[in-house]
Amino acid sequence: MTYTAPITEQRFVLETIADLPGLAQLQHFEAATADLVDAILEEAGKLSAGVFAPLNRIGDTEAAKLANGVVTLPAGVREAYAAYVEGGWMTLGADPAWGGQGLPFVLATAVQEQLTSANMALSLCPMLSQGAIEALTAHGSEDQKQTYLTKIISGEWTGTMNLTEPQAGTDVGALRTTATPAEDGTWRIKGSKIFITWGEHDVAENIIHLVLARTPGSPKGTKGISLFVVPKFLVNADGSLGARNDLRCVSIEHKLGIHSSPTCTMSYGDNDDCVGYIIGGENAGMRAMFTMMNHARINVGLQGVSIAERAYQHALAYAKERVQVRRIIEFADVRRMLMTMRGLTEAARALTYLNAAAVDRAHAETDERAGREAQALADLLTPVTKAFSTDVGVEVASLGVQIFGGMGFIEETGAAQHYRDARIAPIYEGTNGIQAMDLVGRKLPQGRWKSLFADMRADFALLTGETAGLAPYLEDALAALESATTWLAEGGAAGGADDNAAGATPYLRMFGLTIGGWLLAKQAATAAQRLAAGEGDPAFLNAKIVTARFFAEQFLPQAAALLGPITRGAEALFAIPEEAL
Amino acid sequence: MTYTAPITEQRFVLETIADLPGLAQLQHFEAATADLVDAILEEAGKLSAGVFAPLNRIGDTEAAKLANGVVTLPAGVREAYAAYVEGGWMTLGADPAWGGQGLPFVLATAVQEQLTSANMALSLCPMLSQGAIEALTAHGSEDQKQTYLTKIISGEWTGTMNLTEPQAGTDVGALRTTATPAEDGTWRIKGSKIFITWGEHDVAENIIHLVLARTPGSPKGTKGISLFVVPKFLVNADGSLGARNDLRCVSIEHKLGIHSSPTCTMSYGDNDDCVGYIIGGENAGMRAMFTMMNHARINVGLQGVSIAERAYQHALAYAKERVQVRRIIEFADVRRMLMTMRGLTEAARALTYLNAAAVDRAHAETDERAGREAQALADLLTPVTKAFSTDVGVEVASLGVQIFGGMGFIEETGAAQHYRDARIAPIYEGTNGIQAMDLVGRKLPQGRWKSLFADMRADFALLTGETAGLAPYLEDALAALESATTWLAEGGAAGGADDNAAGATPYLRMFGLTIGGWLLAKQAATAAQRLAAGEGDPAFLNAKIVTARFFAEQFLPQAAALLGPITRGAEALFAIPEEAL
Repeated sequence: MTYTAPITEQRFVLETIADLPGLAQLQHFEAATADLVDAILEEAGKLSAGVFAPLNRIGDTEAAKLANGVVTLPAGVREAYAAYVEGGWMTLGADPAWGGQGLPFVLATAVQEQLTSANMALSLCPMLSQGAIEALTAHGSEDQKQTYLTKIISGEWTGTMNLTEPQAGTDVGALRTTATPAEDGTWRIKGSKIFITWGEHDVAENIIHLVLARTPGSPKGTKGISLFVVPKFLVNADGSLGARNDLRCVSIEHKLGIHSSPTCTMSYGDNDDCVGYIIGGENAGMRAMFTMMNHARINVGLQGVSIAERAYQHALAYAKERVQVRRIIEFADVRRMLMTMRGLTEAARALTYLNAAAVDRAHAETDERAGREAQALADLLTPVTKAFSTDVGVEVASLGVQIFGGMGFIEETGAAQHYRDARIAPIYEGTNGIQAMDLVGRKLPQGRWKSLFADMRADFALLTGETAGLAPYLEDALAALESATTWLAEGGAAGGADDNAAGATPYLRMFGLTIGGWLLAKQAATAAQRLAAGEGDPAFLNAKIVTARFFAEQFLPQAAALLGPITRGAEALFAIPEEAL
Repeated sequence: MTYTAPITEQRFVLETIADLPGLAQLQHFEAATADLVDAILEEAGKLSAGVFAPLNRIGDTEAAKLANGVVTLPAGVREAYAAYVEGGWMTLGADPAWGGQGLPFVLATAVQEQLTSANMALSLCPMLSQGAIEALTAHGSEDQKQTYLTKIISGEWTGTMNLTEPQAGTDVGALRTTATPAEDGTWRIKGSKIFITWGEHDVAENIIHLVLARTPGSPKGTKGISLFVVPKFLVNADGSLGARNDLRCVSIEHKLGIHSSPTCTMSYGDNDDCVGYIIGGENAGMRAMFTMMNHARINVGLQGVSIAERAYQHALAYAKERVQVRRIIEFADVRRMLMTMRGLTEAARALTYLNAAAVDRAHAETDERAGREAQALADLLTPVTKAFSTDVGVEVASLGVQIFGGMGFIEETGAAQHYRDARIAPIYEGTNGIQAMDLVGRKLPQGRWKSLFADMRADFALLTGETAGLAPYLEDALAALESATTWLAEGGAAGGADDNAAGATPYLRMFGLTIGGWLLAKQAATAAQRLAAGEGDPAFLNAKIVTARFFAEQFLPQAAALLGPITRGAEALFAIPEEAL
């Protein structure tokens, strides 16, 4: 069950879809030279394959353990995280003003893809730190940045996000944790948080919790929420660690997957002495949280890509060696499963990288309008990246189990772990249903889909020669997507919001498949050009063309056929009274 | 996480789809009076809900354990099986000549559905016994029936199926276990078998293994395979238990799910003294195995129905109580998930019962032609029942996890167990890929689809009033199914067998969805008639009409859109050379 970082594929997508060379032309990212990008992908590939991947199964079987408030990770995890810190990997996309390298988020995304393929549970630790880095970078005070941000960017300390409470999951506004002002300008935090990923562990010397809480007299709901820095150990003026703060991990969850990612129930202020520092002022918590969540949603979408890639590599290796009459890779049905895995994985990767690159462009474009357009694209794509890619992760992992046959159901094989690990991604960071509602309810009204669809259509018109056959499939799918979008943008049928909500999930699927087909076709077109020019690896480039064709032929008709289901409205959904369900 | 047997639904499907009242008119099944059917469903519901269901989670967490060759089940399992035996449940569908009740297989199917919903791992024990019963009934000698069959039918002893060896899974013909004739007319068995469900346990006093092996000089491949009765304890002439036979369980698997179903590696003849008795003569093993497999495939399809039903009930209860702003069942997207679960589950149940009833009709019809037609229908539907329904099981269980949100990923909730348990059913008893190949390669050429499709079309023409709106969806799907069938029956395009194999899996899906839509429409039509006549429970009957509509609107367009993917041929599947995958 080895893992090899798919560097050729990643580089190709970074080039043709994310336009990383174009990003490197922007002053902000001028450090991202082709040589540096290559070196980073290679080195990260070594860390992933050599250090993270071998711990994946051990992490699954031994799991994180809690005893006396201390969470212990399986042997080797601490050393793996230390290797990550030593390589400076946390600094990749972070602000140079605070110790970061200021490289594009999309490059950090490619690195994170590898680490997550190698070991999803362990990769969550830096992923959560990245969320904390973004919130502190955008909303922290100079002092907070000096004290906390630099240490999280270096990787010496890790960060967490504390949103959920038992009664407040999707409904964040229902949270009850309180923050009371102390005389010295700090705050006292009191309350309980659940599902806190890497909330307690022994791999770094301090943990910086970002905690959502309510201040006295704050407005109800999400408007009255503030964000606090709550360190596990208080930090002295000289930066050294001081007293243990009044917070603790009271339990960890027994989960379906990602067993070596400790999912903690945290208790803050049991002794009324949990010190917190407000970030960005009172009642500004949701804004800061959204800063974190948008990146986090892309990163979770990426988990779908990563698990899919790992499951594909694993199943492919088995299909090549397993003999049933002949080697099973020679059977059309097994080949269909492999091509399905491959097509979905590559489509999800391209979408995710496009989305991450749009985030970069939004930050770095010097032309204001271009920056605004990029931000709008990033906003539009984020729910699709998150939901489509994580659904792909589950589907592909399930196909991986199937290729292994009876062996797939045996835990020692490892295919089952992918199937279990993958299942969390459609749930956390906003369920995929929430993403679909976000796409339909918030993102479509912003109108950015119009120029996106125009860009897609323009690309279809350029398909010639070997890739000309893709165009009819793409045009059909896009026509259906436009019809569905118009229907939704006009507020559905009679039922309005409920009708839109009723169609949101299949609409997101249609959106993801159509974008996926487009991005694979773009890659195929580039591949055909390079083949004609005698550039690049012919085997890789030919595979790009075939995969785009398989995807267009197999998945785009399904996408187009979702138009009816999307536009049927909510009536049938509510036609059976609750008690008769 | 309670379970309630869906008796109203089961009775309705038995009546409208399986035509159980019609079966009871046949002399063979005259015992199956309406009163008896009701009593059986009620009593089995009590056993399922009261005895089997409470052990489901304990069985998952404690699992079957092997020590010193003895497999121990978690506390309570032995008592649950004893209650099953005491109720005479194993006798339901068995031959009255050997202690059975001779009731229809479809009624036994409804009972088995309940037991499997309640506790899939435990339900496998009687399911395997049923396979042994069928093989012995059809192919055993009088003496074998007297000695073994009566005891398995009573439930005192259990049965197993021993096909798989490490190198021989899908490729049964590659098996190496040998049987050597002894002087007394018995045989000596030697070899190793893997994945033997309930191969060793402590819930019954004897285990009757049915073992495939090769006799000296037998032809290669599947033509040279014979079937043997190999009891754990030899049986004395007076029926009492004698010496322990030379066979043992050497290990049990650590699996993704069904943890309290011991999956054993069995070793036969370590001391060259494993006694076996041939069934049906030399080289007749595959025929006997097929007897077992056809019923077993329907029973495994049923597992998809059962897990889906359990996951639906579980998620529905949670959706009614869980509050996020408002109770989550009030959100359109949650309602969509519930309706999807409901529609798929009811479609798979109707298909499975139709299939089981066709088996009954094949046995019991006095008119020879009707019996032959019924057998051909059973043969045609079996791969669809097995593969479509088990895919449904996985999909519905996954949606169940999703409805639970973060709690769904926590093992204590139980939703994750359904997701894990469900995953084996698409694999064992012939992978779903094998089923698709069976459908396309063996069943379509038999031609029975022609009259089936004609019957479907005739039913569509009868849809009027409230159900008239279903007809266009059904007609579109059936038209596509006919086109695909014609294409496949004509041997695909240029590629012939490989082209057919390439389209087999989406074809089976299209077949399952279209049949499912038809059977739900039939039920809706009956429901509408009863509502008009003022008969029956209006809430239940209305729900039937709504579910049929939801299914037609949401799933049938997807079925129709598979025509293109099915008929694309194998070229793209093999266009990437293996080393470039």
